[in-house]
Amino acid sequence: MVNLLYDQLIEYIENNQFELLQEVLRDKHPADVAEFINQIPPEYHPRVFSLLDNEMASDVLAEIHDEFRSLIIQSIRRDRLISIIDEMETDEAADLLAELTESVTKNVLDRMEEVDRTTFRQLMSYSEDSAGGIMQTEIIAVKQYFKRNQVIEYIRKNYEEVENIHYVYVVDNQNHLMGVLDIGKILLAGSLTVVSEIMTEVIAAAVVDMDQEKVASLFRKYDLLALPVVDIENHLLGRITVDDILDVIEEEATEDAYRMVGLNEEDRVFTKPINSVRKRLPWLTLNLFTAILISSVVGIFEETIAKMSFLAVLMPIVAGLGGNSGTQTLTVITRGIALGELTIHNTWQAVTKEITVGLINGIIIGSITCLIAYLVKGDPRLGFVLAVAMICNMFIAGLVGSLIPVILKSLKIDPALASSVIITMLTDIGGYISFLGLASILLV
Amino acid sequence: MVNLLYDQLIEYIENNQFELLQEVLRDKHPADVAEFINQIPPEYHPRVFSLLDNEMASDVLAEIHDEFRSLIIQSIRRDRLISIIDEMETDEAADLLAELTESVTKNVLDRMEEVDRTTFRQLMSYSEDSAGGIMQTEIIAVKQYFKRNQVIEYIRKNYEEVENIHYVYVVDNQNHLMGVLDIGKILLAGSLTVVSEIMTEVIAAAVVDMDQEKVASLFRKYDLLALPVVDIENHLLGRITVDDILDVIEEEATEDAYRMVGLNEEDRVFTKPINSVRKRLPWLTLNLFTAILISSVVGIFEETIAKMSFLAVLMPIVAGLGGNSGTQTLTVITRGIALGELTIHNTWQAVTKEITVGLINGIIIGSITCLIAYLVKGDPRLGFVLAVAMICNMFIAGLVGSLIPVILKSLKIDPALASSVIITMLTDIGGYISFLGLASILLV
Repeated sequence: MVNLLYDQLIEYIENNQFELLQEVLRDKHPADVAEFINQIPPEYHPRVFSLLDNEMASDVLAEIHDEFRSLIIQSIRRDRLISIIDEMETDEAADLLAELTESVTKNVLDRMEEVDRTTFRQLMSYSEDSAGGIMQTEIIAVKQYFKRNQVIEYIRKNYEEVENIHYVYVVDNQNHLMGVLDIGKILLAGSLTVVSEIMTEVIAAAVVDMDQEKVASLFRKYDLLALPVVDIENHLLGRITVDDILDVIEEEATEDAYRMVGLNEEDRVFTKPINSVRKRLPWLTLNLFTAILISSVVGIFEETIAKMSFLAVLMPIVAGLGGNSGTQTLTVITRGIALGELTIHNTWQAVTKEITVGLINGIIIGSITCLIAYLVKGDPRLGFVLAVAMICNMFIAGLVGSLIPVILKSLKIDPALASSVIITMLTDIGGYISFLGLASILLV
Repeated sequence: MVNLLYDQLIEYIENNQFELLQEVLRDKHPADVAEFINQIPPEYHPRVFSLLDNEMASDVLAEIHDEFRSLIIQSIRRDRLISIIDEMETDEAADLLAELTESVTKNVLDRMEEVDRTTFRQLMSYSEDSAGGIMQTEIIAVKQYFKRNQVIEYIRKNYEEVENIHYVYVVDNQNHLMGVLDIGKILLAGSLTVVSEIMTEVIAAAVVDMDQEKVASLFRKYDLLALPVVDIENHLLGRITVDDILDVIEEEATEDAYRMVGLNEEDRVFTKPINSVRKRLPWLTLNLFTAILISSVVGIFEETIAKMSFLAVLMPIVAGLGGNSGTQTLTVITRGIALGELTIHNTWQAVTKEITVGLINGIIIGSITCLIAYLVKGDPRLGFVLAVAMICNMFIAGLVGSLIPVILKSLKIDPALASSVIITMLTDIGGYISFLGLASILLV
């Protein structure tokens, strides 16, 4: 929303001109209204949200940041909440129900029709990150023996409820998924065409407990607009649409970036400070212990440092470059795994490549450092120690930066957990031991 | 592709049973064939690729990793290359043409029909990361006064060429974009319905030079399947489809993760070692200079360290925790910016939050460190120095980790460039100055 309009609308709020505000919001796209609400101070949220009609409210609520949504929901009357949920697509409604307090969820479910209640109970039972957790049950499924005109009638009846009909699914009498119909093909077919003549094979389907990351990779691989979801016996349960996959991909990218630095996924820009503190503390405490471990490695060489204090001045150089080099390798490898470029068939090639790169960079950067040290300090031995330590440490960086995520992956642990803290701990230790160790042998 | 099959196919290759291989690949989805080729040793690529018919080859080529594609292209005869390009969607063909050597591109273009040549010259003139760079010119555009049956005839004629028809665009006689038709609506409309009755307003369109990141955010915001691309005078030029946006989002996420650690986007898992070295060296050299800068800060306190060598042992603790805390803040803020959650209206709130979190974490972690130091070393003054330095440094971490990306963004520089190297340089310097500075005042 352009800033001029934003300022205007804020003025309406501040002057209590809610009718004017309501008029402007009514004509906007729900995504724009949600964007506006996400940007205004949270204390205005309930009042502004109350101006929206139920259909708009249901679309907007799905787009509001998690941190703000619970506050808004608490401000909605029970009756209205039910009407709003009724307008939502089933996947969004189930997510919303899962966010409510238990008693409210129960109350809302009790007031629904039996068939809806069963659907939602089922949807809420799936893990949030699984195919079942992101699917919707609004689908159009027809039988193989339907004629083209029956299909159109069927679509017409469900058109309001099922948005974005990309594909019509074909099932047998036991609701087994048999094939798929492109809506373009239906449009162009003759009126007496039978479904089985124009349906195509299902390229890909997700079993209901498939991880959403795997689901997203199927969309990317096969350029899908929607993916049918089935149970293990191939009964059609629902579909996942590509618009939700855009969000899944962003979510997974955030998760990877977050894990790399030990952040919890729920720790976002507008999480309350106290919650962010609580979420970051365990990690920082772990970090304190790795730091103490590193420090105790330095402690081994305290006597050497007491004799040659300039070593303490130079040691951060070796550790720092190793750390950055290791984090670079870690990033290349974890992105490669996330994008599916790295598989068991080519892992070894990638690891040896990273070690080679680390070694070559170590030789080059080490030589530059050696030269600088010689020019500044005039001692060729010191330069030699710095260079050798740098080469050792960059070799270590390539090794641990590539091997650790690969090993984690083979153990079926998220490779993004091979965080920068672990890698820099190893390169710090490697850097201090190689530099201070060599120095205490060669320079004393 | 399952491993069993992979092993079988590799065996075919090794035994020169290419006819058997060809038979298996013929029935596979192009995405599966591409995945297979991406995983086998590159020396087999040309031979395996030569087994594919032109249509399969064109689909496969678009999915091959960049590192492998150029090698394959070089192995294709000129005639075949032209046939393959002819089968491709215009956006993919233009990308491919841009990758060829100048003389090959010219030669290929010269052998095309005039109209295609003009289209490709135009497409290749757009920046790779812009709407024009990712759009395709295969669209179905009809006039407002068309009847429903004319529209269907029009779709029928173009059905083979234009894949995935989600929307039909409506233009006036000067090709100005006037509206859009959902294909479902066409299906359900009566045969005499006029386009203007069922067309809807265009929710969003991209001007041809719009950045692809902005384009992706429009898809996410409005849940689009395709987006029309227009010039500044609203003439319809092409469309961008959601399957390409999935790739754009992954690409942008990779770019953000890469910038954070100073990697070049083209430096991937299977880039040749020598190219990776060349791409990482400038950054590591910059890094060497920040490390020397940090080292010279420590150098100010060399005398203090000479007197109390245990300070050199403890100093990595303060620097390390500040660095990790700063990188956490940096990650939260840059992801917030990338996802559009952070805007000019709420920046200040986010920065103060991060500083508050840094301060509180500093007080807690500082207190723990103080206690440990007292228990181990028995000196309350040392614990105090450590604690105060930790608090200062975590405050600095929250400040620079949030402020730097925000400032870069307001200067229209990519906030992901506020890399971890810059942040850890600042927290290293902050940590060493506060710890060694306080120590030289209080402990000497």
